[in-house]
Amino acid sequence: MRLRKKPWAKEYMGKFPELVTDQPYEKRGKWRTLFPGTDPDAPLHVEIGTGKGRFITEMAMAYPDRCFIGVEKHSSVLVTGVQRVEENPPPNLKLIEADVKHIEELFDEGEIDRLYINFTDPWPKKRHAKRRLTHPDFLNKYRTVLKSDGEIHFKTDNQGLFEYSLASMSQTGMAFQNVSLDLHNSGMEENIMTEYEEKFASLGMRIYRLESWYSEGEF
Amino acid sequence: MRLRKKPWAKEYMGKFPELVTDQPYEKRGKWRTLFPGTDPDAPLHVEIGTGKGRFITEMAMAYPDRCFIGVEKHSSVLVTGVQRVEENPPPNLKLIEADVKHIEELFDEGEIDRLYINFTDPWPKKRHAKRRLTHPDFLNKYRTVLKSDGEIHFKTDNQGLFEYSLASMSQTGMAFQNVSLDLHNSGMEENIMTEYEEKFASLGMRIYRLESWYSEGEF
Ligand SMILES: C[S@@+](CC[C@H](N)C(=O)[O-])C[C@H]1O[C@@H](n2cnc3c(N)ncnc32)[C@H](O)[C@@H]1O
Ligand SMILES: C[S@@+](CC[C@H](N)C(=O)[O-])C[C@H]1O[C@@H](n2cnc3c(N)ncnc32)[C@H](O)[C@@H]1O
Repeated sequence: MRLRKKPWAKEYMGKFPELVTDQPYEKRGKWRTLFPGTDPDAPLHVEIGTGKGRFITEMAMAYPDRCFIGVEKHSSVLVTGVQRVEENPPPNLKLIEADVKHIEELFDEGEIDRLYINFTDPWPKKRHAKRRLTHPDFLNKYRTVLKSDGEIHFKTDNQGLFEYSLASMSQTGMAFQNVSLDLHNSGMEENIMTEYEEKFASLGMRIYRLESWYSEGEF
Repeated sequence: MRLRKKPWAKEYMGKFPELVTDQPYEKRGKWRTLFPGTDPDAPLHVEIGTGKGRFITEMAMAYPDRCFIGVEKHSSVLVTGVQRVEENPPPNLKLIEADVKHIEELFDEGEIDRLYINFTDPWPKKRHAKRRLTHPDFLNKYRTVLKSDGEIHFKTDNQGLFEYSLASMSQTGMAFQNVSLDLHNSGMEENIMTEYEEKFASLGMRIYRLESWYSEGEF
C-alpha cells in the first residue's frame, strides 16, 4: 500500500476515543466490556491489517450483535476508516493502531472468536516469507488469542499467497471449509467487500477465500 | 468418461500377464516382489482411476527405480494403456482392473508410498459427494494402505472438486505442500501430463494440483 503520510492522523483520531481505543494494550482480556450496550457474550471478531476500514465498518453495521475490532499499524491509513464512520460510529466497532506481531499482548488467550485476514501484503520473495501474516509464526500467535473453536477467514487476490497459506495453515494443524477459488463467480450470498477486493474484482481478477480452524485431535 | 465398450478387452489384456496382473487381490502385501529386477525396497506408487494410462506408463519410463501400478475399473479403458506399452512393457509397471473402493483388499497396510489421483470424476451434485475419490470415506481407506509418511498427489481441472478436496482432506487430518492453482503457468519443472490434463490444458483451462499427507500429531 502506497503510504501518503498524514502527520495529523494521530491527533485527529484522538478526538474519537469511543471509536479509536487509546492504550489498547491495557485493554487485554477486557475488550468485551468496552462495547456499551452489546451483550457481554457477543462474539468478538477482529480484522488484522484493516487498512482504510471499509470491510470492518460495513461488517459492524451489518451485524450489530457482534463486536468488531480493526487492527492496523499505520495511522495514516486507519484514519480513513475513522472518517468513514465518525459522524455516526457503530457502538460495536473499535479501530486500533497496533502491529499484529504484538497480537498476544493485545488480546488474552481465547479472547477472540474470529479473525479476518483480507488482502494482506503477499511478500512474494521467499526470503520475506516470515513477514506474511499467514506464516506459521503468526498462525501460532493467532491460535493463542483465538477460542479453541475460533475461525480465521482469509481472502486474497494473490494466487501465490493463497497457495502458500493453504500449505502453512494445513501444516500448522488447521482444517478448511467453504474454500472458494473464484469468490465472485461462485454464487456467494453475503460478502462484504474490502477496498482491495473492490479494486481487484473490478479488474476481473479472481478472489480466493477460505475459512479455517485449528483442528488437532479432532479427527 | 464416455465408455466405448470393448468386449474383447479382457481377453486381450490376458495376453500380457507380466503387465496386467490377474487375480490382483491375491497379491495383497506382495506387490513389491512382483517387479523382477527392481530393488525390493523401491518405492511403490499407485495411480487410481488411471484411465487410458498415459500418466502411469510415462512415469514408469521416466522413473525406472520406482514401481508403478495403475488401477482402473473399466477394462475397455485400461486396454488402451496396455496397447501403449505392449511392445516393450516397462518392468516396473503393472496395470490392474479393480475398483478403488476395494483398495484395502488390494494393498496391505502401509504397502504404498504414494497415491496419484488425476482428473477423477467430479460428481458435482452434492448428493453424489460420496462417490468422489477424495471423499473422507475414501481418504480413510487410503490412509490404511499408505505408509505413515506416504503422500497423495492430486491434479484436477475441476475447480469445485479441488475446493471440496481441500476441505475434505484437511478435515481428515491431511496437510498440504506444493499447492498450485495454475500448474501450467507456474514454472513447474517436471510434470507428466495425463490424457485429461492434455485436453483441458490445451483449452486454456487452469489445472489445480496439490501434494498431501496425513499429519496428525505432527504439529
Ligand atoms: C494490502 S492492505 C489491505 C487492506 C484491507 N485489508 C483491504 O483488504 O482493503 C494491507 C494492510 O495491512 C496493514 N498491515 C500490514 N502488516 C501489518 C501488521 N503487522 N500489523 C498491522 N497491520 C499491518 C498495512 O499497513 C495495510 O494497511
Ligand atoms: C475422468 S477419467 C481420468 C483418467 C486419467 N486419470 C486422466 O487423468 O486422464 C477417470 C477414470 O477413473 C476411473 N474410475 C472412476 N472411479 C473409479 C473407481 N472407483 N475405481 C477405479 N477406477 C475408477 C474411470 O473409469 C475413469 O477411467
